[in-house]
Amino acid sequence: MSWRDHLRQVEPYVAGEQPKMRNLVKLNTNENPYGPGEKVKAAIRDFDSEVLNLYPNPDAETLRHQLAMYHGLADDQVYLGNGSDAVLAIIFLTCFNSSKKLLFPDITYSFYPVYCELYGIDYETIPLKDDFTIDIKDYMKDNGGIIFPNPNAPTGAALSKAQIEEILKHNQNSVVVIDEAYVDFGAESVMRLIDTYENLLVVHTFSKFRSLAGIRLGAAFGQKELISHLYDVKNSFNSYPIDALAQKIGEASIQDSAHIKANAQKVIATREKTCEALKALGFTMPESSANFIFVTHESVRADVLFKALRERHIIVRYFNKPRIDNYLRITIGTPEQMEVLIEALKEILSKQAEG
Amino acid sequence: MSWRDHLRQVEPYVAGEQPKMRNLVKLNTNENPYGPGEKVKAAIRDFDSEVLNLYPNPDAETLRHQLAMYHGLADDQVYLGNGSDAVLAIIFLTCFNSSKKLLFPDITYSFYPVYCELYGIDYETIPLKDDFTIDIKDYMKDNGGIIFPNPNAPTGAALSKAQIEEILKHNQNSVVVIDEAYVDFGAESVMRLIDTYENLLVVHTFSKFRSLAGIRLGAAFGQKELISHLYDVKNSFNSYPIDALAQKIGEASIQDSAHIKANAQKVIATREKTCEALKALGFTMPESSANFIFVTHESVRADVLFKALRERHIIVRYFNKPRIDNYLRITIGTPEQMEVLIEALKEILSKQAEG
Repeated sequence: MSWRDHLRQVEPYVAGEQPKMRNLVKLNTNENPYGPGEKVKAAIRDFDSEVLNLYPNPDAETLRHQLAMYHGLADDQVYLGNGSDAVLAIIFLTCFNSSKKLLFPDITYSFYPVYCELYGIDYETIPLKDDFTIDIKDYMKDNGGIIFPNPNAPTGAALSKAQIEEILKHNQNSVVVIDEAYVDFGAESVMRLIDTYENLLVVHTFSKFRSLAGIRLGAAFGQKELISHLYDVKNSFNSYPIDALAQKIGEASIQDSAHIKANAQKVIATREKTCEALKALGFTMPESSANFIFVTHESVRADVLFKALRERHIIVRYFNKPRIDNYLRITIGTPEQMEVLIEALKEILSKQAEG
Repeated sequence: MSWRDHLRQVEPYVAGEQPKMRNLVKLNTNENPYGPGEKVKAAIRDFDSEVLNLYPNPDAETLRHQLAMYHGLADDQVYLGNGSDAVLAIIFLTCFNSSKKLLFPDITYSFYPVYCELYGIDYETIPLKDDFTIDIKDYMKDNGGIIFPNPNAPTGAALSKAQIEEILKHNQNSVVVIDEAYVDFGAESVMRLIDTYENLLVVHTFSKFRSLAGIRLGAAFGQKELISHLYDVKNSFNSYPIDALAQKIGEASIQDSAHIKANAQKVIATREKTCEALKALGFTMPESSANFIFVTHESVRADVLFKALRERHIIVRYFNKPRIDNYLRITIGTPEQMEVLIEALKEILSKQAEG
């Protein structure tokens, strides 16, 4: 017997690609290409570091109130966490404690099955349709919970609010979680359905729309009873509050909302222009409502394009997985970055045509 | 069947006391009474908020290197997490995956049994001796792991490095974790034993000694193999890095170390002076090597003192638990705060004597 025998066994971790090239065009992690705004800048600059010796306000009351106001909710309909991944983990632990199966799409956020394994949750993946959209009829069967991102990742395809309400109407006996990490780039939020469906949770992150991937801040929204239950479970094994600086930055971000919305409009315009340019080069993609697109080419394989782009210091995301191994997920950057991408693809495709 | 049937059931959370009094003397959560230092102040003021749209350096290389240098270790002997609670959670999940029982004291950090329940870890609590110290002989039996804080909480009592090495000599077949959250207030660190014992992990926090309770930053130290395994498990279900601002603040804190050590010496001096004053009032306490003391009075019950102090806006910690329900845990604040405490206790005790 060795101490090693008591260790949890996992697959050795292979670090994600973090190339240290100069002049890198980084379009692989769905970051917002624009900064978070002037109020955030001022909040950090003016932060009183002398209070860092104290634990933060445990209820993050000000941030909670401001976020509630922004969404037209009551303060007790808001759950805050140190990152939306931490929020999702608490939701999985709290809400999917069922003998019935949790349902989510076969192609979706890769951490859903990971949380299921961690917490011993039984699940069933539902195949997306051939066009990579969700068929809402597939979710109208007995289950222990439902979760999917809207728009979905990595496809970018969104359901309408009316479609999600159909799912909710047929699923009032389990918790339904809509992960709206990318919703502000063009999909319809279901935030307004919270008042009607007591089993609905909506999850947001500050990392994408609000350009705050550098800090850890996420939120869930729902009726008071369910939100309160999330806090009960969280506090039963983790008493620690939201980082004091992240609270201040989050509050400032709410004040920066007009600026942030204008940036999202820029991203959307760049996305549409990029899609047109890519279609002209022989690419197709599901209609995206996110800050990324999911593209495939009529003749050149995705892994070939991935490598050729990488040689040109342009990093996109390639998933070597069933059904999607001929697709690239490309984050929408600045117009300048997308022009570099388009020019590179033109060059790569013309070389491929020659060869 | 209702959606409520799928929820994990926990005891409803009763929020910890966060009194909103003016002129509060807050001695209940073991915060450092001094600020984090000038380099931290500058790091926040000069932080470039424009990079917050990007995910942080996933390996926190600079912070990892600086912390390694500070402790005379190699970079790959350092594990960083968003708070020492997050570090402890990963350690429990990774290292105590055994059919044998994890051992820890009956009176210790309250989250150890919580993590055990969360991850299904079987454990046995070992009673402290009557003087609230650990008997190292109790830990020389078959086990699936050992963890305790040194100095222990809430007692403040510490083992020597030699005593901990005795435990390690007799326990080379399970992981031994020494939680050194309070070590810099007067106990001996076992950091130097890492090179000898490949099954040893030492856990530190930035919240106490480094006056950074407001952010979430903690670390574990050990041999490369075990540290690498912690990262493997962490990354298998949570790819997210250390908050970008916390990385910068942590780096600055290392630069502030001389200032921070001077503050710890002030806390120690205040502790010794406070203990003398309290002994003169009829209190006794285990010898503390932490930034708190654990006191009991010869005639007045702890809960009576707790309430009387609270009426005077002085908040200390009372645990209504077996063996320790006649004790108060008092954080060492500034000399001025401790004088207010002593004067209040004098008044309370003399009133009690009259009554």
